[in-house]
Parts: sequence; C-alpha cells; structure tokens
Amino acid sequence: MKLVTLIFSLSTIIISCHGLALDLDHGLSFSIFPLRLKSGLGGHYIPETSCSSWRLGVEAHNIIDWKTVPQECEDYVGNYLLGKQYREDSKAVTEEAYKYAKSLNLVGDGKDIWVFDIDETSLSNLPYYADHGFGVEKYNATAFNEWVDLGTAPALPESLKLYKRLLRLGFNIVFLTGRPDSQKDITLHNLKSVGFTTFQTLIVKDSTEYNGKTAVTYKSSERKKLEKNGYRIVGNIGDQWSDILGTNTGNRTFKLPDPMYYIS
Amino acid sequence: MKLVTLIFSLSTIIISCHGLALDLDHGLSFSIFPLRLKSGLGGHYIPETSCSSWRLGVEAHNIIDWKTVPQECEDYVGNYLLGKQYREDSKAVTEEAYKYAKSLNLVGDGKDIWVFDIDETSLSNLPYYADHGFGVEKYNATAFNEWVDLGTAPALPESLKLYKRLLRLGFNIVFLTGRPDSQKDITLHNLKSVGFTTFQTLIVKDSTEYNGKTAVTYKSSERKKLEKNGYRIVGNIGDQWSDILGTNTGNRTFKLPDPMYYIS
Repeated sequence: MKLVTLIFSLSTIIISCHGLALDLDHGLSFSIFPLRLKSGLGGHYIPETSCSSWRLGVEAHNIIDWKTVPQECEDYVGNYLLGKQYREDSKAVTEEAYKYAKSLNLVGDGKDIWVFDIDETSLSNLPYYADHGFGVEKYNATAFNEWVDLGTAPALPESLKLYKRLLRLGFNIVFLTGRPDSQKDITLHNLKSVGFTTFQTLIVKDSTEYNGKTAVTYKSSERKKLEKNGYRIVGNIGDQWSDILGTNTGNRTFKLPDPMYYIS
Repeated sequence: MKLVTLIFSLSTIIISCHGLALDLDHGLSFSIFPLRLKSGLGGHYIPETSCSSWRLGVEAHNIIDWKTVPQECEDYVGNYLLGKQYREDSKAVTEEAYKYAKSLNLVGDGKDIWVFDIDETSLSNLPYYADHGFGVEKYNATAFNEWVDLGTAPALPESLKLYKRLLRLGFNIVFLTGRPDSQKDITLHNLKSVGFTTFQTLIVKDSTEYNGKTAVTYKSSERKKLEKNGYRIVGNIGDQWSDILGTNTGNRTFKLPDPMYYIS
C-alpha cells in the first residue's frame, strides 16, 4: 500500500512538473487539446532539455528567423502552452510591466500611451494552433485567416488584466497589429467582445503602404507617426521581437512568450 | 521487483527533470555544491514555476535592474546552474552563433572580429557564486575581487568551443570586459591558462575614462573605437543585456544565460 501511494505521488509530481496538468482556469474557451504522450511510463515524460533550450533561445532572441517549431518539440510546446507555465511566464512579464507603469508620473494630457500588439499579446490564437501542431506545421495563410475571420479569439488573461490596470492608471491604449486592413472590422469586434473596449486606436497594416515590408519596418514607422502626433510611447508590449525592436520602441518594452511562430 | 524498478525509474525521472542530476562532465574544476533540498520525497522537488518565470523574464530582458536573485529561488537557480539545463541552454546559444558564423563569407583581412565578454561568458565564476548563494547574497566587491585575483576561473565549455571554432573560421577575437585595468594581468593569465590563447586584444574598463559609467556606455564606446580602427564586429556574445545593447553592437548578438546577477 505504501509503495502504491509512493508511486502515485511520484506520478503526480511528474505530471505537474512537465506541464501536463491542464490549467482548467486557463480562461480559454476551447476544448482541451488531446495531448499525445509519446509513450507510457518509463522515462519519456521528461521534456527534452533541448526543447527547453530552444524555447529559451527563441525568447532571448538568440534563435531568429525560424520557420516552424522543431518537429520533436511539438509535444513540449503543446504541453507548455496548455499548462501552467505559459500563464506564469506571461504573468511575470505583465506584473513587471505594471510595476513599471505604476512607478511613473503620467503627464495626464491623454498623450501617455501604451502600445499593445494583438496576436498572442491581446488575443490568443491558441485554439487555432492547437489544431495545427502548435507551430510545427508550416504557416497556412488561408486556414489562419479563416480562423481570424471568425472573430472568436479569446483574450490572453494576463494581458487583459494589464490593459485594465493601465487604463485605471490613466494610460491611453493603442493597438498596433500586423493584421491587414481587411481584417480591421472583425478585429475590432473580437477585441471588444472579450473586454478590450476602450482604446485610442487600432492600427492595422496598410497593404499598399507596407506591401512586402517587415513588421519591424511597419511598426517602427507607425510608432514614429504616433510620436509625431504628440503621443509619448511609455510602454510597448508584444510577443514578437519585431514588436519591440527598430525605432521609436517606447520608453520600455516587454516581450511575452511565444514559442509558436517567428515574425521578422 | 517490477514495482521497485518502476519506483527507481520514476525517481530518476524526477531527479533529471529538475536539474538535480549533476553533470559530471561540467568542465568546472570546483567541488560540487552540496545541494540543499527543501524536503524529502513527496512533492517538494517541483521547481517553482514562478522561479522559472523569473529566470525567463530575466533572459528575455523583461525583468531588469534587479539587485539579487529572489531568496525563494536560491535552490532553483543553484540546481539550474549545476545541472544539465544551463549547459544545454548555453549550447543552444553557441550552436546558433556558430551556425551564423559559418554562413558568412569573411573578408579575410583580419578585421572580422567577434567580441566576447568575459565573466559568465568566457570564464565562469560559478565556483565563487556556489559559495555565495548563487546571486541571492548582495554583491560583495571585496570577496569577488579576491576570487578574480586567484585567476583560477574555469572556462565556460560551450563558449570555449565556440571560440576555437571561430578562430578556425578566420575570426579575430576581442575580449571586452567590465573588469578594471588593475585586473588585466590576472585576467590575461586566467584566459590563457584555460585555453583562450589567441586573440586580438583584451579591453578592460579604464577606471578614469569610465568612472561611474554604465556597462552599456563603456562597451558601446569601446566597440565604436574598434569600428573606427577598421574592425568589423561580425558577432558579439555576452551573458548580460548590457553586453549587446547600446550602439555598435555588431551584426548579430548572442545572449548567454545568467540568472545570478544583473549589470546595467
């Protein structure tokens, strides 16, 4: 009996440890992805240290210009995203952002702004990616746009909390997204339906002006316009390094985790 | 018998999973830190997701200007540094750096340089920090300088490997460190004794010129001088964001892990 208890206890530890314990309070309104474990008990629950290193390399901007998640990391990335660690990692970023925001004395003329990216920052496409190998599959524009056009992406809970706190501090919010102008209406609808109801503006990527331009170029240029119009970019948060690199990045930037895709 | 095997197998998983399995091939010549486990079997081997999030926040430059490692993360950070994950994480960075270096066509005039930071990049102070709470204790300049003056810091194995590979590719190496001029001789001795035998120059922080200046200012200024002298900074690697931010950062930068201290 003691042995059985011990085994059970050890199994529990392993499951929690590897992020297989699903966070039922994830705030995402999709059915839980049927996790595919590579094998039964006996050692294969260990996340590959190399997948963990790959993820860290991505987050710290060492590994760049990658096209897809390494095939062998699909389970690791899926478990990470559906487990507690993704939420905890996001929370560490947004709490730091709030701590910074709280420490400031805003001018209070409505020109203090905080820039939010949308995908994987304000809205989560995890329901889509859970059905598409968590970034292992090659990007499929048609399928992804069909998903976006549903307008049903859930909010990233930690970002929504940060957004509400920033509003209370007196910030104006600007959404700056790589989504094209054709998706502006559905994006506005989606944002509002999940709680992002109050903001200065939503900037989408003008297909003519920025045709073929990288996200770094497009976003830098739009931030420059904001500053020319008298706005002060006090904070800037995104899941991609291209959200926070380039020019006019803002006084301080924050990088949310995203091990699913890379945009340059 | 089967049950016993299973228990053993599960225990092994837990130990490896949490980085408690010490890497005997760590290449570091210090006696292994007596890991203090918070409690016996039963659930407390789980690393706190919050310490993992803190570390990620540090590596992705979200958490900045911190003075010491959070007290509750001492075991977590110690286990990380003495276990396999630190080596794996470093390897992911240096392999990416090598992949990049290999892809280039160097001019071949001896002016293609790669900048290496020293502490926690080329040389490891882990033997010192293992005796000082892995960054939990407040920085003690006297004690740390005594350690540096011994000149016995081991090489970071993955960085030494990258260094050798870069030399073979035809790069010149420049060491750029925040160590003061008074430690130049012992640093040269230490570098050479662990295998960093061939390099263009070692730049130390001039106490007069850079008195009170941040690492970002000092290193940017020294890199600018290098470029003025005709060198092309093709790559730049360090463990601190202050090694790779600022101006004249080089064509591509690489951030090695360091959850022990922060230098601005």
